[in-house]
Amino acid sequence: MAEKIRIAINGYGNLGKAVELAASKAEDLDPVVVFTRRDPATVRTAGTPVASVADMEKWSEKVDICVNCGGSATDMEQVGPRAVQFFSTVDSFDTHAKIPQYFAAVDAAAKKSGHLAMISSGWDPGLFSLNRLLAEAILPQGKTWTFWGPGISQGHGDAIRRVEGVAAGVQYTIPVSEAVEAAQNGSREDLSARQMHRRVCYVVAEEGADLKKIEHDIVNMPNYFADYDTTVNFISREELERKHSGMPHGGQVIRSGNTSEGIDQVYTFGLKLDSNPEFTGSVLVASARAVHTLAAKGQTGAITIFDVPPAYLSAKTGQQLRSQLL
Amino acid sequence: MAEKIRIAINGYGNLGKAVELAASKAEDLDPVVVFTRRDPATVRTAGTPVASVADMEKWSEKVDICVNCGGSATDMEQVGPRAVQFFSTVDSFDTHAKIPQYFAAVDAAAKKSGHLAMISSGWDPGLFSLNRLLAEAILPQGKTWTFWGPGISQGHGDAIRRVEGVAAGVQYTIPVSEAVEAAQNGSREDLSARQMHRRVCYVVAEEGADLKKIEHDIVNMPNYFADYDTTVNFISREELERKHSGMPHGGQVIRSGNTSEGIDQVYTFGLKLDSNPEFTGSVLVASARAVHTLAAKGQTGAITIFDVPPAYLSAKTGQQLRSQLL
Repeated sequence: MAEKIRIAINGYGNLGKAVELAASKAEDLDPVVVFTRRDPATVRTAGTPVASVADMEKWSEKVDICVNCGGSATDMEQVGPRAVQFFSTVDSFDTHAKIPQYFAAVDAAAKKSGHLAMISSGWDPGLFSLNRLLAEAILPQGKTWTFWGPGISQGHGDAIRRVEGVAAGVQYTIPVSEAVEAAQNGSREDLSARQMHRRVCYVVAEEGADLKKIEHDIVNMPNYFADYDTTVNFISREELERKHSGMPHGGQVIRSGNTSEGIDQVYTFGLKLDSNPEFTGSVLVASARAVHTLAAKGQTGAITIFDVPPAYLSAKTGQQLRSQLL
Repeated sequence: MAEKIRIAINGYGNLGKAVELAASKAEDLDPVVVFTRRDPATVRTAGTPVASVADMEKWSEKVDICVNCGGSATDMEQVGPRAVQFFSTVDSFDTHAKIPQYFAAVDAAAKKSGHLAMISSGWDPGLFSLNRLLAEAILPQGKTWTFWGPGISQGHGDAIRRVEGVAAGVQYTIPVSEAVEAAQNGSREDLSARQMHRRVCYVVAEEGADLKKIEHDIVNMPNYFADYDTTVNFISREELERKHSGMPHGGQVIRSGNTSEGIDQVYTFGLKLDSNPEFTGSVLVASARAVHTLAAKGQTGAITIFDVPPAYLSAKTGQQLRSQLL
């Protein structure tokens, strides 16, 4: 067996932990370092050595691929171009609107340093994007739908927790089943945000807080909730922790297209995830494998899942893939 | 706009017609010739000129990609290596067990002639294979299920029509819904052929034929029906033509995997097709686009969908794909 691919994990929150887990299970990968902005002495990993992000450069010869597991998109805009100075990288940058400018920034930095960077490689953006591309390329005349959930949306949970009187809370994004069914049955009718998704909140109120006002403030919050049918459930902290501490998510990409008059072809891709970060971490780890192969062939700059021959995501040889999976 | 990619269609049955249709709708493709083994004067296309397969070589400078739309697998084993002497090619060779040897034969011929050949690029093998690969690469610990149907199986229909006393008939392969549900819910239990699919036949009997014997002969036919729950319905020729002359198909690839103890992640890909040949033709046409790009970069030999950067299947630029679909 060839030498293992040495993986750095840049950031050690939920996603970083998931990458460590996935990389340690893969026979061809070896997590060799976790980079942290905290004091390295305070970070307890599952076994991977810890170093300060400030010392990243010292690892440039000891790491093959750095997986950027930063928190917010704002962080990542700094982290991505910086890490690619020292390593080939993978990330799951997920602010769709900013992808073109992030791609350009990482591409420039990667070309300058001679590294390769795969950006936005989780499930959306990532696998969902890949399926939007495939479905549209094969069925050019049609309509693509993306449904998210049922699952916990971090951004909406953050928005709830900023409401006055809220002590804690989570938000589930739930696709409207009639809309999903219509899409699966080939409907091309445009639907509003409200017709496609609903939002369900579980909120722990501060003692003595005005529940009616909390509900009103959430339900009418612009951008986050006002355009959706939103339900607010008040629960105890104990119930919140017992029932809502997981991070499930998922969704579906559906495209219906016509190849000729009256001939409907429906393409569906779906994920049902008990753990959003663990799945995203698994996509990142497969992506790291592909970046390693492409970088070894001399490719530099920024790429996405659109640019990767799928075989490179697998640890199997071309011959194994053709005989076992084709 | 760049010059259109010139497409040859090698064989003009249902699949060849579908490729002509899909290629003429695509703005970047131009179907320039149909090759036939019949007398070219007897072949009526939707507008594409017709030539004899014997004259293929004369078209080598006038065609970019030849799409092989041969009938049986046996034909294709001859057609694939022959066509790639003159053109870069695409096909949907679908005898899974013979793929490694077919790949080797086409690869050798393609390398000798300096062309590129993408084999087995329909939906199964093809898109289903791609999803089996992606799901396994991302979720290495788990189980992959492939369900086919509801849809018409040509091979099983042929088998019915060989039974004594049968004038005509079709066969639908139908996934067992309990099995699909179990897979979608993360079951890893092994199921028998009978537990996964059932078979429903619509048969037109010859006048005076022994219906009991026909049913017995079908239901007990080894390989094709004996291992399944099979229902035989006798209908009139008129009803057969009215209700069963379409070529619907589809199916699902489902993989459930664990990323850690108790954390199930379920990956599902599905197709629901009103026309199997029209969809396969659409995949072949997108594949032709990708082969054209890769051949222009100097790649030769045989490849599969595993080896193709997905962006090349689309007519859009990388920038368009990133801003619109990522």
